[in-house]
Amino acid sequence: MNGYVSDAVIRRLPGYYRHLRELEENGVVQISSQELGERMSLTPSQIRQDINCFGGFGRQGYGYPVHELKEHIGEILGLNKKHRMVIIGAGRIGNAVSRYPSFRREGFETVAMFDSDPALLTEEKDGIAIYDISRLEELLPGMDISIAVLAVPAPAAQETANRLYECGIRAIWNFAPTDLQHPADMEVVNVHMSDTLHILSYRMTHGNTDRK
Amino acid sequence: MNGYVSDAVIRRLPGYYRHLRELEENGVVQISSQELGERMSLTPSQIRQDINCFGGFGRQGYGYPVHELKEHIGEILGLNKKHRMVIIGAGRIGNAVSRYPSFRREGFETVAMFDSDPALLTEEKDGIAIYDISRLEELLPGMDISIAVLAVPAPAAQETANRLYECGIRAIWNFAPTDLQHPADMEVVNVHMSDTLHILSYRMTHGNTDRK
Repeated sequence: MNGYVSDAVIRRLPGYYRHLRELEENGVVQISSQELGERMSLTPSQIRQDINCFGGFGRQGYGYPVHELKEHIGEILGLNKKHRMVIIGAGRIGNAVSRYPSFRREGFETVAMFDSDPALLTEEKDGIAIYDISRLEELLPGMDISIAVLAVPAPAAQETANRLYECGIRAIWNFAPTDLQHPADMEVVNVHMSDTLHILSYRMTHGNTDRK
Repeated sequence: MNGYVSDAVIRRLPGYYRHLRELEENGVVQISSQELGERMSLTPSQIRQDINCFGGFGRQGYGYPVHELKEHIGEILGLNKKHRMVIIGAGRIGNAVSRYPSFRREGFETVAMFDSDPALLTEEKDGIAIYDISRLEELLPGMDISIAVLAVPAPAAQETANRLYECGIRAIWNFAPTDLQHPADMEVVNVHMSDTLHILSYRMTHGNTDRK
């Protein structure tokens, strides 16, 4: 990346990656800023600015090489590395995440799950063991985990996040519907399930201004 | 809303709603653009522009009334209406959605589920019946549904979306990791589970430029 990159550009990176992967899967080799803009509901000039920001893909008039650009953005996103994940909370959301097909392909591997419900601990889902949350401090440090998925009820989220930090976890993907307090050296990204549902509700009320 | 509203503003609306609801729950009555901006990682000037766009809340120097602004944005989002939902696909994602606690509170009620797996059809989850997908055309039109949640595997998504359209559904909340082709009078909003995970991966690689 070329120096400072705005948060807005960073938020768009996963969308670029997704669209470029789809294009690649469909056998598309080159794409113009015009065509990519239409797919992503961005202006061609916005696309050119963003890609310029990623560095070295400005080939005015020739379009962008789909595979190279996808690989480059994947590297910026850190998808060229392996991430070992643990899921805290073996309920419906935790299980949906553990089975989500694309994560493993992208290098995110679920290693274990933890839960406080004794009824769940006897199970092993898809070869992933579920441990009692009381054993977190005993087991987690030996598991070489880089990301914890937090899928516990909101009231338990903050205490669990504190314990994860003490166990050395520095990145949390948070599905609990609450904002976590955390030290500056821990990254927390919240998943807000309702947000896209609210956008749908907006469009049902007002029509889709996004569409050309 | 005051005339044309950009897609970027619309995308921020659910975040405004979420933060204002949290503030209200915490007993906050008024908030300045400065404070709201800090919570939402937006500049105070961006906040003022956005809220100006929603209409009638510009009270320079006094801050915004939290409850009124939340209610107003809720109305813009259509959250003052009831939405009856059906979930297609009673697997892990479908079940996670059917149980998500805040949806009912916000007026989104899951009425029924459909699945093609005979093993699932005998079950009734939390009082929500699961019907055979072959009965979609028979049952759906009588259910007064406004939103279909699509939680089927990607290869089945397009055909299912087509059938939903034929049954009169005009809004799909799509969890299937695929882009759907659809008529202009059907709204489709995609949920991309991986996007926030990719943002987390980015921050683990580069640090969080979002933070002040």
